[in-house]
Amino acid sequence: MKIFSDELVAEACRENNVADLGHATIGETLLVAQYLEQKTGIPFIRMDQGSPGLPVNHYGVEAEKRALDRGVGSQYPPAAGVRELKDAAHEFVKAFINVDISARSCVPTTGSVAGSFGSFIATTQRIPGKDKVLFIDPGFPIQKSQLRVLGIQWKEFDIYPYRGEGLRAKLEEEMADGTVAAIVYSNPNNPAWICLEESELKIIGEMATKYDAVVLEDLAYFCMDYRRDLGHPYEPPYVPTVARYTDNYILMLSSSKIFSYAGQRMALVCISDKLYDTYYPALKERYHDAGVFGSTLVAEILYMITSGCTASTQYGYAEMLRLSCEGKINFVEDTREYERRANKMKRIFCDHGFHIVYDKDVTMNVGDGFFFTLGYGNMDGSELASELVSYGVSAINLDTTGSKEAGVRACTSRMRDELYPVLDERMTAFNADHPL
Amino acid sequence: MKIFSDELVAEACRENNVADLGHATIGETLLVAQYLEQKTGIPFIRMDQGSPGLPVNHYGVEAEKRALDRGVGSQYPPAAGVRELKDAAHEFVKAFINVDISARSCVPTTGSVAGSFGSFIATTQRIPGKDKVLFIDPGFPIQKSQLRVLGIQWKEFDIYPYRGEGLRAKLEEEMADGTVAAIVYSNPNNPAWICLEESELKIIGEMATKYDAVVLEDLAYFCMDYRRDLGHPYEPPYVPTVARYTDNYILMLSSSKIFSYAGQRMALVCISDKLYDTYYPALKERYHDAGVFGSTLVAEILYMITSGCTASTQYGYAEMLRLSCEGKINFVEDTREYERRANKMKRIFCDHGFHIVYDKDVTMNVGDGFFFTLGYGNMDGSELASELVSYGVSAINLDTTGSKEAGVRACTSRMRDELYPVLDERMTAFNADHPL
Repeated sequence: MKIFSDELVAEACRENNVADLGHATIGETLLVAQYLEQKTGIPFIRMDQGSPGLPVNHYGVEAEKRALDRGVGSQYPPAAGVRELKDAAHEFVKAFINVDISARSCVPTTGSVAGSFGSFIATTQRIPGKDKVLFIDPGFPIQKSQLRVLGIQWKEFDIYPYRGEGLRAKLEEEMADGTVAAIVYSNPNNPAWICLEESELKIIGEMATKYDAVVLEDLAYFCMDYRRDLGHPYEPPYVPTVARYTDNYILMLSSSKIFSYAGQRMALVCISDKLYDTYYPALKERYHDAGVFGSTLVAEILYMITSGCTASTQYGYAEMLRLSCEGKINFVEDTREYERRANKMKRIFCDHGFHIVYDKDVTMNVGDGFFFTLGYGNMDGSELASELVSYGVSAINLDTTGSKEAGVRACTSRMRDELYPVLDERMTAFNADHPL
Repeated sequence: MKIFSDELVAEACRENNVADLGHATIGETLLVAQYLEQKTGIPFIRMDQGSPGLPVNHYGVEAEKRALDRGVGSQYPPAAGVRELKDAAHEFVKAFINVDISARSCVPTTGSVAGSFGSFIATTQRIPGKDKVLFIDPGFPIQKSQLRVLGIQWKEFDIYPYRGEGLRAKLEEEMADGTVAAIVYSNPNNPAWICLEESELKIIGEMATKYDAVVLEDLAYFCMDYRRDLGHPYEPPYVPTVARYTDNYILMLSSSKIFSYAGQRMALVCISDKLYDTYYPALKERYHDAGVFGSTLVAEILYMITSGCTASTQYGYAEMLRLSCEGKINFVEDTREYERRANKMKRIFCDHGFHIVYDKDVTMNVGDGFFFTLGYGNMDGSELASELVSYGVSAINLDTTGSKEAGVRACTSRMRDELYPVLDERMTAFNADHPL
């Protein structure tokens, strides 16, 4: 039996201007869930938004407070970031990815969202006619919304049928006309939690070099592929990255998930030194500057959007990165709670007839982490997302992420211990009401 | 006699890739000054960058620290801003401007630079064909750089010959073709420190209504027109504003100067409620949302750029605004040091043959504050800016701000007591070397 009547769900949608619950955005889904919770007092299993569900890293907080007391709040921070953060970023990339990127080329942004926004601008303006972005989907819907703001065209494909060597022919097909300026994906993947393997990253890197496209590698869930023993500084295995296979890359390192620091809006773009130093006449013409990629991105693009990033938070992030390199912060163990939650949640769903949609990488089963994907029989994603709301569970339709597969994305971040039996009970009812 | 030889200045330009010192940006001028200081150990009179020269507001700092301790750093802040800040902004606008803007329509941005960036996008996308920005110059060069990033066209004119009623015909001429989407100026003005008077704001407001353009009123130097007794909450005189004369406005309220908070990157856009609620089919079509100006600006534009603003800083800003309304912070007295500096500096310059370029408003002489403008005989701005560097004084050519007048912009923020006799000595030499 449903927890919330069809009438009540319809009311929640109407009151929140949600026209189509089955294809609702994260924000819309969240509003409906909050409305139903407040109206009835019945708790929701909130699997919609990927906001951290762990306490903020206290080393970062203490470093921010010290910086505030030193008075860093009064002066504009340098456009390229404060020295301590740039040095720490260089070292962190070396320690956990085993890639060399100079401190100069590590630049803070107001969240990775500002990093991708600025990078989309710079990469699509650098060569006339090369102005489209290619998404290896499923992906983060906000990045497409950014292109809508900027009026930039994009291409997209769902990687599901193109894992492993099949990726090469697909990329060749998408990139052959030379209009792709940038390739975007997150690894581990939001929403599917699949992880691109080294063989796939090698293909992407080779194609980026061949067609002079810049790879924007979103590492928001850095080292959170818990199947492997990542997260020991200066020791293999290192984080897989396209940076080993091309010089055309920008790595995006968010503080939001690994340090539970989303509220303070701080990330880094770590730009390949070779790309940083590349001269583009089109940039020079547009900005009347030297036309060098990195300095144009920093001084003529990012600076014009936020004029630097919150000073105290830069010192906080620097401290967390530095302590991670010294082994004093173990951010992998700090966030492993998400793995435990995913494991329990997936088991409950699968016990009641659900299946994991994106279930495999090339050589391994998909691991447990921040997100997972769910399908149910032949139900499409729209019906599943809508029906789950009636049973007090909020998730988003995979088709809002560029996926062609039927299903929903679930986030583990808001799960609480007392809700596992509730989830089990509700999914027992769901299964009974929807016989397979 | 010059302090720095022509060879040394040429070397400083060469080493910092400054091609034309006479037309250098703020950032370039600053690099040359720093290079010369470091190379010789001789202190510069730094009048280039408008960074606060006073300690950070400690009420803001303490509120940020408390917020950090409460753990606000872990969760994404709401797209529209935290409740406390929105409420405080509504009250602050009422107390010091005597204008009613609902808390809903007061939205934090990562500095006013992000506020104008997002506002330029929204205002130029809302009506097809109405897509240009009109600058009432002189102005802040960064705002034009923002349009260069976005590929938006602009028009500009120097207000110098169009003060008072003359402004109406000039605006009519610029706006008659209906392509102006937004009008921008700062009041008090950066760089000239002129202040638009009520009669001029009325003209601007009427023209904005007549031609459906949105006024972006940059109040970065809020209440810093020290000629008038502003800054008493809920008491006249109130801050002059276009908001009294049109419903088509967005006020930009930066924390950087009034609370010496530039490092933390926090400002507000306060959107006219009527504009906030206006429906634009072009926005609906582009963003597949309700097409309502305010919610599109917040949820589809600003959110896509930074996904909210640093949480702790929002609480810090809220506290400073709240205490200002209660009369516990007197931000006008706190910043009046700039007035004293300008008064002394202007006197020294004028004693040695300089004159104030923008010297008058419609009914009053220009006051003393954060910036002032300087001319010298018939010297053009390029020669004056270059020559001053040789005498250990850095300023920027007015022509980089859209001014048609010959001169430079000087900022008082970095002046120190021990430098007044040094300035006097250097300007004595300048005057002797450049007989009028």
